[in-house]
Amino acid sequence: MLPFFICVNERPEDAPLPSCARRGSGALLEAFQAEYARRGYPRGVKVSGSTCLTSCHCGPTVVVYPAGIWYVGVTEADVAELFDAHLSGGKPVARLLLPEEVRIW
Amino acid sequence: MLPFFICVNERPEDAPLPSCARRGSGALLEAFQAEYARRGYPRGVKVSGSTCLTSCHCGPTVVVYPAGIWYVGVTEADVAELFDAHLSGGKPVARLLLPEEVRIW
Repeated sequence: MLPFFICVNERPEDAPLPSCARRGSGALLEAFQAEYARRGYPRGVKVSGSTCLTSCHCGPTVVVYPAGIWYVGVTEADVAELFDAHLSGGKPVARLLLPEEVRIW
Repeated sequence: MLPFFICVNERPEDAPLPSCARRGSGALLEAFQAEYARRGYPRGVKVSGSTCLTSCHCGPTVVVYPAGIWYVGVTEADVAELFDAHLSGGKPVARLLLPEEVRIW
């Protein structure tokens, strides 16, 4: 199973940390679901929303397993490329990778 | 990163498919979060809720990565055992494993 998890965590507007939902991750999840449908619900692939995935300052955050590839700052324009990269055994999308220096784990 | 994803998807009461939230997965997620806190937020471990993870007839569904181990029918009483199994490199908890015959992927 190759799942994409898209953080849809939402914090109040005045919260000390930003949140992916306030950076448009609801629409991003919908874009992932639309791309998944457009490709005929490829067997073995799954798109799920999730609560906080950390890296809140750089969101929206997306993680792809089983490889455990973490992406940040993902936009709807990136979705097709992410499917291509992970469904066809290609390389991760380098420009969206979570930088080592902002990892908290 | 070793994440536990707990499905907290909720469907209407009269929906054709059951849903994990109606089987108590909200409290289950809280139990996972409490156990995570009790263990001192172990570095490299993460607990997140998620939208539908499939296997709705057997929920609550929990998946652990990067191993990609799928559990169903998980209860609050199982949480400490699941942490022990996955944090200490032990074996998956056999009685909770998603049976091959009900996999849809």
